[in-house]
Amino acid sequence: MSEQVYGRVALIGLGLIASSMFWAMKRAGLAGEVTGYARSEETRATARKIGLCDRVCDSAREAVKDADLVVLCVPVGAMGPVMEDIAPVLKPGATVSDVGSVKRHVIEAVQPHIPEGVHFVPAHPLAGTEHSGPESGFAELFDNRWSLLVPVEGTDPEATARLRALWEGMGANVDEMDADHHDLVLAVTSHTPHLIAYTMVGVADDLRRVTDSEVIKYSAAGFRDFTRIAASDPTMWRDVFLTNKDATLEILGRFTEELFALQRAIRTGDGEHLHDYFTHTRAIRRGIIEAGQDTDAPDFGRGQKK
Amino acid sequence: MSEQVYGRVALIGLGLIASSMFWAMKRAGLAGEVTGYARSEETRATARKIGLCDRVCDSAREAVKDADLVVLCVPVGAMGPVMEDIAPVLKPGATVSDVGSVKRHVIEAVQPHIPEGVHFVPAHPLAGTEHSGPESGFAELFDNRWSLLVPVEGTDPEATARLRALWEGMGANVDEMDADHHDLVLAVTSHTPHLIAYTMVGVADDLRRVTDSEVIKYSAAGFRDFTRIAASDPTMWRDVFLTNKDATLEILGRFTEELFALQRAIRTGDGEHLHDYFTHTRAIRRGIIEAGQDTDAPDFGRGQKK
Repeated sequence: MSEQVYGRVALIGLGLIASSMFWAMKRAGLAGEVTGYARSEETRATARKIGLCDRVCDSAREAVKDADLVVLCVPVGAMGPVMEDIAPVLKPGATVSDVGSVKRHVIEAVQPHIPEGVHFVPAHPLAGTEHSGPESGFAELFDNRWSLLVPVEGTDPEATARLRALWEGMGANVDEMDADHHDLVLAVTSHTPHLIAYTMVGVADDLRRVTDSEVIKYSAAGFRDFTRIAASDPTMWRDVFLTNKDATLEILGRFTEELFALQRAIRTGDGEHLHDYFTHTRAIRRGIIEAGQDTDAPDFGRGQKK
Repeated sequence: MSEQVYGRVALIGLGLIASSMFWAMKRAGLAGEVTGYARSEETRATARKIGLCDRVCDSAREAVKDADLVVLCVPVGAMGPVMEDIAPVLKPGATVSDVGSVKRHVIEAVQPHIPEGVHFVPAHPLAGTEHSGPESGFAELFDNRWSLLVPVEGTDPEATARLRALWEGMGANVDEMDADHHDLVLAVTSHTPHLIAYTMVGVADDLRRVTDSEVIKYSAAGFRDFTRIAASDPTMWRDVFLTNKDATLEILGRFTEELFALQRAIRTGDGEHLHDYFTHTRAIRRGIIEAGQDTDAPDFGRGQKK
């Protein structure tokens, strides 16, 4: 059992990440009181019904009042306006953090509104499922996953250390990283793969109209994984691509270059090129299993997550 | 408990699919004796050690002798030569089938060698994992998955019905389909997604060299699924792309067309286009869950498979 890290925590936005944070903080007793706010009245009603947050407030300002930690859990594109709204009522010495998948843009949008005497420590937990909304969270979501802290220049090291303790208490491994580097790494490991999955599912759907839903019926392993990825929250992902534009476009450029090389190998019947490439990627998978981010077991370790 | 469908079954090639077939046939008592052959001496030794097949033979000809059903479980590119080798010793009235991921090419390579009085019923079970080899099989692999039969013109309906009974006995749902249509549907649901996953993993590896294995360390959900797909058997997949060239290239063409449209939307900041697209693909995922090919549960139904 960890001990309390913050007296009061405010969660702004009550989706998958915020709700999982609430249950994870409760599991380990990391926060005295957790308040929550969501823009949609329906979401607030659901949160109250399922006991998500100790207190659900009807405004963001009310939720952040006297909070020692405020976590912005809204889509990346909404971070700036939300921060501008709550800035005047933040408690001196409080820490503001976020869980956005893009960091440079969030820093540019949020940082100018941070009042004197309030700390800002951006963060990004690398965890999720294809589900969204207040009912999708669970306490184990962050267990053994990475959470990246991206402190801005001049951030108080103590504020960063405290946020690190919170994430570790919620089960995550924590690393610190520069914002631009974060955005590039995520463009490779998450953003571009999502865009590609979305695209492939869209293509399949075009064909589905021709073939009377066979594509859905016969969705073997490959395609099934893509559809799961492509079921993620549309607003969140729209904002990710609009705000991590440069890194995503760079990786997409590399991707199409390599894809065209494989396409040429198929067209010309160059089996050696294909075999070499596929052997190489298999080794990368081995590296991931050894790094402990997945398991070799037939249920791919997902059964352990809930 | 099903009853015996074939007196003797020969499995040529002892990888994931053949070994799973063996355990699935044993589970339900579908075959009197199952013989097996693999080209590699090491594979045959492993098979003998783990009790895979009632009898492991040192030649394909020996394995198929007196068999009522011969199933070719070798990579698509090896089907023709194997068939040519065993043709002279096949029992009159026997059925030859296969489990290749491509059907038109297999038919063209195998059919000319089928002796008078022997039936040929191509098949393709839509099931697999990223593992390969004789030790990777398990009896439940085909449970509630589809197995497609692709009978050629003039096939004896009774031979087809018997093979259908075998697959149903091994837990699969069975459909029949024309070879060209099969190859197109699979290009969409399986072959192209695999190629894309291979490509993305290759791109990530390029960057990994720059970023000191962070890509592996931070492989969040999106990329992890890709690496699992891209860990599949290189020889099998090389053959798939070389032998289902036309359909794969057609779907790849559609894919790059759609990807470029999304890329343009990112570049120009067209959030509405992105949001609409992502909302649409989410609905397709819902269709797959409703079709029963996956579940909504957090372990994605995979825990049920073994």
